[in-house]
Amino acid sequence: MPVHALSVGVFDAESRLAVAFQAGRRPVAPPAATFAFTRARASGGLLCGPVLPTGKMFKAIVSADTLRDTLDSVSVLVDECKIHLNDDGIEIRAVDPANVGMVDLTLSADAFESYEADGGLIGVDLSRLEDIAGMADAGQLVQFELDEETRKLHIQIEGLEYTLALIDPDSIRQEPDLPDLDLPAQVVVEGADIDRAVRAADMVSDHIALGVDAERELFYVDAEGDTDDVHLELEREDLIDLEAGDARSLFSLDYLKDMNKALSKDAEITLELGEEFPVKMHFDFAEGLGSVSFMLAPRIQSE
Amino acid sequence: MPVHALSVGVFDAESRLAVAFQAGRRPVAPPAATFAFTRARASGGLLCGPVLPTGKMFKAIVSADTLRDTLDSVSVLVDECKIHLNDDGIEIRAVDPANVGMVDLTLSADAFESYEADGGLIGVDLSRLEDIAGMADAGQLVQFELDEETRKLHIQIEGLEYTLALIDPDSIRQEPDLPDLDLPAQVVVEGADIDRAVRAADMVSDHIALGVDAERELFYVDAEGDTDDVHLELEREDLIDLEAGDARSLFSLDYLKDMNKALSKDAEITLELGEEFPVKMHFDFAEGLGSVSFMLAPRIQSE
Amino acid sequence: MPVHALSVGVFDAESRLAVAFQAGRRPVAPPAATFAFTRARASGGLLCGPVLPTGKMFKAIVSADTLRDTLDSVSVLVDECKIHLNDDGIEIRAVDPANVGMVDLTLSADAFESYEADGGLIGVDLSRLEDIAGMADAGQLVQFELDEETRKLHIQIEGLEYTLALIDPDSIRQEPDLPDLDLPAQVVVEGADIDRAVRAADMVSDHIALGVDAERELFYVDAEGDTDDVHLELEREDLIDLEAGDARSLFSLDYLKDMNKALSKDAEITLELGEEFPVKMHFDFAEGLGSVSFMLAPRIQSE
Repeated sequence: MPVHALSVGVFDAESRLAVAFQAGRRPVAPPAATFAFTRARASGGLLCGPVLPTGKMFKAIVSADTLRDTLDSVSVLVDECKIHLNDDGIEIRAVDPANVGMVDLTLSADAFESYEADGGLIGVDLSRLEDIAGMADAGQLVQFELDEETRKLHIQIEGLEYTLALIDPDSIRQEPDLPDLDLPAQVVVEGADIDRAVRAADMVSDHIALGVDAERELFYVDAEGDTDDVHLELEREDLIDLEAGDARSLFSLDYLKDMNKALSKDAEITLELGEEFPVKMHFDFAEGLGSVSFMLAPRIQSE
Repeated sequence: MPVHALSVGVFDAESRLAVAFQAGRRPVAPPAATFAFTRARASGGLLCGPVLPTGKMFKAIVSADTLRDTLDSVSVLVDECKIHLNDDGIEIRAVDPANVGMVDLTLSADAFESYEADGGLIGVDLSRLEDIAGMADAGQLVQFELDEETRKLHIQIEGLEYTLALIDPDSIRQEPDLPDLDLPAQVVVEGADIDRAVRAADMVSDHIALGVDAERELFYVDAEGDTDDVHLELEREDLIDLEAGDARSLFSLDYLKDMNKALSKDAEITLELGEEFPVKMHFDFAEGLGSVSFMLAPRIQSE
Repeated sequence: MPVHALSVGVFDAESRLAVAFQAGRRPVAPPAATFAFTRARASGGLLCGPVLPTGKMFKAIVSADTLRDTLDSVSVLVDECKIHLNDDGIEIRAVDPANVGMVDLTLSADAFESYEADGGLIGVDLSRLEDIAGMADAGQLVQFELDEETRKLHIQIEGLEYTLALIDPDSIRQEPDLPDLDLPAQVVVEGADIDRAVRAADMVSDHIALGVDAERELFYVDAEGDTDDVHLELEREDLIDLEAGDARSLFSLDYLKDMNKALSKDAEITLELGEEFPVKMHFDFAEGLGSVSFMLAPRIQSE
C-alpha cells in the first residue's frame, strides 16, 4: 500500500469535534467521516457542569500503590492535570499538547480507605505528586486534606507532612471531550503482549500499525522500517478475547510507548480498533475500582 | 519568622576558634556567642603531638566491609585525608573545603584481624582507596603493610597486591580542632528516619531545619520551599531516645545529603542540637569498635 | 625493565602474515621472529573455499541463550561480521579495525534444535541481531530462515517475526587468517580471575602484562601506573591447570576489557602465552558445542 503522506488525526477539545488534518493528494476518507465524534457530552459534561473551583471539601486516605498507579496513567501524557473530586470518586481527563493522545481515568471512592468530597476541582503538578507518592513504602497509606482557603493540599505519609501548592485549574489545558467511538473490532490481550509489540516495533520504525484480520480471526501488529520489518500475529487462542471485524490503523510509536509504560504486564488490556480510526485501550486497576481509557488518534495514510 | 539573610557558620581550623560569618542587618546572636568553641585541645592535640610522618611502622588486616564503612564515612566530605596510625587504632579527622562539615572517626585496633602501628601518619586519596576496597568481596580480608622507605602502602586482597602511592600529609588540608559543644537537646533515631527527612526536604528546598520542641517532647524537621513545604514530626514513642531541650537550627541540605549517604538505614544515630548551633551526628560501626561523629555548622538566620 | 617505546603487533589480514610494527631504538626481537604466523591456511581456507554468497539455504532453530552467547563473543570486537553457514554448524571469524584483536567462533549444528545449511555466507549487523535476541525470554527459541531471493533473514520468536536486511559480505572487513601459534605456556583459570585482574589493572594503567614464571610455577598479572602498581599471582593450586613455560607479554587493557565482557565468570578459560607473543584465550559455551578463541596482539617493549 503506497503511502504518500502521513498526517495526524487530532482530538479537538475546543470545538468538541475531532478533525483529521491531512496532507497529500487524496485522503483515503474525508476527515469528517473519519472522526465523526459526537457532541453528545458537550452540554451537561463535566467541564460545563456544576463543578466549582472554590469552597469545596476533600479529605481522603488511599494506599500508596493505588495512588502511584493513578498518577502514572496520566503522567505518561501530561505534566499537569485537573482532578475532579466527585462524591463517588475522582475523575481525570487529559489530552497531550498535540491533541493526539487522550486519557480518561476514574477511581471509585471505594478504592480509598476513606473518602469525602463534594464536587471540587483541583489542578496538580503530576511529577511533584509522583515524587511525594514515591516517599511512601509499598503498603503505606497516604492522607490528603484540601485547605480551600490557602488552595494547598496537605499530604501526610506516616508523620511526614507535605504541603503542596495547587495549580489554578483555569491555567491547565482544557479537558478533552470523550469521543463516542463505535469501533468494529475488539481485542483483549495481556499487557505483556503490547509491551513486546511496542519494543519490537521500536527497533525498526517510528510508527506501528495495529489491525484485526476478521477472516483469519487474528490481531496483528506491523512496523515497517527502511530496511527491516516487524510483524506480530496473535491468533484467537493467543488472545484473552476477540470480537473480529476488519480494522487497521497506523499510530505514532512514541505515544504508544508512553501509554505502554502505564500498562502492567499482567493486566488485561482491551483494545478497540477500526479502519484508520483512533485506538481505544482500556484497563482496570485498584482491583477493578479504578479504570483507565487511553485513546490515540491515528496517522492517516493518503494514497 | 522572617529571614533576611542566611550566613554560614564555619569551623575555623586555622585559629582553633570557630567563627560565624554573618550577613544581614542584625544577627540573632553575636557570632562569638554562637560558636564559642573551646581551645582545650589546641595544645597536646593530635596535630601537635608526637606524630611523625616518617620512620613509622604499620601492618594490619581488616575485613573489606569494615574498611568500606570507614572510608565511606570520610569520603562524603573530603577527597583526601590524613590517617593517624595510633597504637590502639586509627583516627581520621577532616573538614570540608568550605569549613562547614567536619568528621571525626576512630576505629579501634580490636576491629582489625591483626593490627600493628606506632603512631605514624599517612595521607591517602580516598576514592582510590575505595576503588581498591571495592575489589574485595564481602567477607574477604584486606591486608595493609606500609613501606616507610618508598612511602607506599602495600595492599593485598587474596593474591592481588596493590601498591598505593601515599600523599604527603603536609599537602593535605589541616585537620580541624574538635569543637567542645554542650548542646541542650539529644535525639536518637534510626538512620532510615534521617534518610526519609532528607529526601522529603530535598523535594522543596536547599535548606533543612532540625529542631526539638521541649514542651511537646518531639523532634521535628522543616523545609520551606517557594511554594511547597515539608514537615516531619517524630514524637517520643517514634524515637529511640530523647533528651528534650529547645533547639532549632537551619542547615545546608547538600551537606546533610552527603552525610546521610554514610548512615546505614538501621543504624542508631544520635543527634545533638541547639538553637542556631552546629548539629552533631554520632553513630557506631564495626560492631561498636568504630565510631563516627559528623558536625555540621548551621546557617544563621538574621532578623 | 626500561620501556622506551611501545608498539602494537598487528594481525595483517591482507598479507596473511602478521607483522609487528615497532618504534624505538632496538626491538627485543625482530618482528619477523615475533610473529612468524604460518600461511598454511591461506589456500583452501574458508574465504577461498567454495562458499558462495547467493543461492544458499539456511533454516535453523536455536535457544535465545545460545544465540546471545554467540553474538556477545563477536560483538565485543566488531560491529558487523560474516557468518559461515556450514553443513555442520556456523563459524565466525573477525578482527577489529586496528588488527589487534581477533575472534574465531564455531557453533556446532548439534547446539541447535534444528539446523539446515549448505555452505552459505551472510553478513550481519551484530547490535541489530543482539537487539532482536534480546526480545526473547530466557529459554525461548529463535527461528531463522534465509530468503535468498530478497537477501533477508526471517527471524521468529513466539509469534513475532522480524525481517532483517542482511549486509553484503563483500562490504565487511575481510576475515583474518588464523595464526598458527605454538606458545610455550598454558594456563587454565576461571573467568572470575580474569575479570578480577582486568578490573584491578584498570585502576592504575592502560596496559596489562600477563606472564608465567616457569620456575616458581605461577601465572601472574602486572600493571604499572604512574604512581600505583597492581600485581596478581596465581600459583599452581589456584589454577585449574598450568603447563609452565616462561612467558610474559604486554597487552592493551582496552582490548582485554572488551574480551572480558564475553567471558562468563564461572567458565574455564585457557590462556596460551609466550614471550612478547599474542595471547590466545579459549573457552567453550553452549555445553561444549560452541567454542570461542580470542587472540590479542602484544604491545612490544623496546629497550
